[in-house]
Amino acid sequence: MIKKIAIQGEKASFHDIAAQKYFGPNIEIICCETFKDSFNIVESGDAEYALCAIENSLFGSINETYDLLVKFNFVIVGEVFLRISQSLIVLPGTKLQDIKEVYSHPVAIAQCEDFLDKHLPIAKRLEYYDTAASVEMIRNRKDKKNAAIASSSAAKLYDLKILKEGIETNKQNYTRFVVITKKPIFNEAANKTSLIIRTNNNPGSLYRALGVFAERSINISKLQSRPIIGKAWHYIFYLDIDKGLNDKELIDAFNDLKVQKCELKILGSYLSGNKT
Amino acid sequence: MIKKIAIQGEKASFHDIAAQKYFGPNIEIICCETFKDSFNIVESGDAEYALCAIENSLFGSINETYDLLVKFNFVIVGEVFLRISQSLIVLPGTKLQDIKEVYSHPVAIAQCEDFLDKHLPIAKRLEYYDTAASVEMIRNRKDKKNAAIASSSAAKLYDLKILKEGIETNKQNYTRFVVITKKPIFNEAANKTSLIIRTNNNPGSLYRALGVFAERSINISKLQSRPIIGKAWHYIFYLDIDKGLNDKELIDAFNDLKVQKCELKILGSYLSGNKT
Repeated sequence: MIKKIAIQGEKASFHDIAAQKYFGPNIEIICCETFKDSFNIVESGDAEYALCAIENSLFGSINETYDLLVKFNFVIVGEVFLRISQSLIVLPGTKLQDIKEVYSHPVAIAQCEDFLDKHLPIAKRLEYYDTAASVEMIRNRKDKKNAAIASSSAAKLYDLKILKEGIETNKQNYTRFVVITKKPIFNEAANKTSLIIRTNNNPGSLYRALGVFAERSINISKLQSRPIIGKAWHYIFYLDIDKGLNDKELIDAFNDLKVQKCELKILGSYLSGNKT
Repeated sequence: MIKKIAIQGEKASFHDIAAQKYFGPNIEIICCETFKDSFNIVESGDAEYALCAIENSLFGSINETYDLLVKFNFVIVGEVFLRISQSLIVLPGTKLQDIKEVYSHPVAIAQCEDFLDKHLPIAKRLEYYDTAASVEMIRNRKDKKNAAIASSSAAKLYDLKILKEGIETNKQNYTRFVVITKKPIFNEAANKTSLIIRTNNNPGSLYRALGVFAERSINISKLQSRPIIGKAWHYIFYLDIDKGLNDKELIDAFNDLKVQKCELKILGSYLSGNKT
């Protein structure tokens, strides 16, 4: 049976590319306008999984995804890392000097600012809701004054020309996506666990919570604070831990957290993705 | 001499109200389009201070401000907390049923979603770059179909009518602003310190860094991770500490951090603001 995967964005968007990388080509992608919509599609049962960006190596955590993980009672069953490389995409026959308007998602435009300042200083930068959708739009407009910034896959999908590849300023540009579902299967091979902790609010309570991992040499690869809604200036913490739920030491650490009266919610235990 | 304060946003925006609350009425506000512009105005010397939102109790940290604090070599000299309350603002004589379009900053619109869904389910929500500027715009348009969401001060400034006050969904809505400058004066009475730490990347290094504070019962009121640009999946941590730089124990803790080869950058030591 073909798996149905909900994503934010259009075909050939980075979410789509990440979904192909994780699941392979034999999937049905359900394109959504927002992250929340992609979670709702899983809630309704119209998709088995959602794949959702959670962090970019330059911009940091995507808070909306963290907050959706609290709101929906889903489970993270996997992750995938994607190198984000942007291309300048045009109609066939377009030259650099023809371009007067560059369309893309605002984050993609920001990532290519140096290239645009150097090679297209006068061209207007115009924001669009999705990188791949901006390619579709310039194809439909058939105007050589227009260019789009998107993945090279988007150029292929819409049969347009890549004028220049790798135009992003910083090459250390990676996005981590998580795969979430409603009904997970326990993964025996899991080597990474994501969780939320809520400490009591005494001085040193976060320090003591981290201690249950440190004293067992369990590495925390990510720690992210988020506000508790309705309780101003109080926080929960998201942790990514380099061990799976099969690990006895991790279970011991969790038991120590409970002794500290630290609330704990496991978001998922899964195979870590390849970072390159 | 009248102090010049750079802010993002227009007169009667929440940044403006926060600046009046911190400095009093005898100031000159320099309105900027972006947070970065407000920092640049201080850099150029055209304003002595910038006042900039750094965290909201519902939305969490404002990453752009954290990143600007790293980029510019400025010092935090104060903070101010503001309760964010939104009003539905209209032309005199407008009734709820007249309203077809509601303008505001997207965050303000999101904060009032429940009110809009209940009382104005069909009205279009239209995004504008600033809450107060949306009030000025509907005043200039003179069309009773238009409403704006902004502070009650914005209604007074533009002599419009408040149809309903306190329309935000969650009343636990506070924003913390920091006051930054180029040439600080050391504040003997400071009781709060903001800093950045960069640990070596070994397991438990953050735990050990937090230990220098915990073992002295020094409270950390905020911990925020941000990515290191160009070094994917490595982080720096922002800390707010409930002690000033006059405190000998805090200096001892900093010395212990240096022994741990933990890099340390002090962003400022200042009087903590009143949270209500």
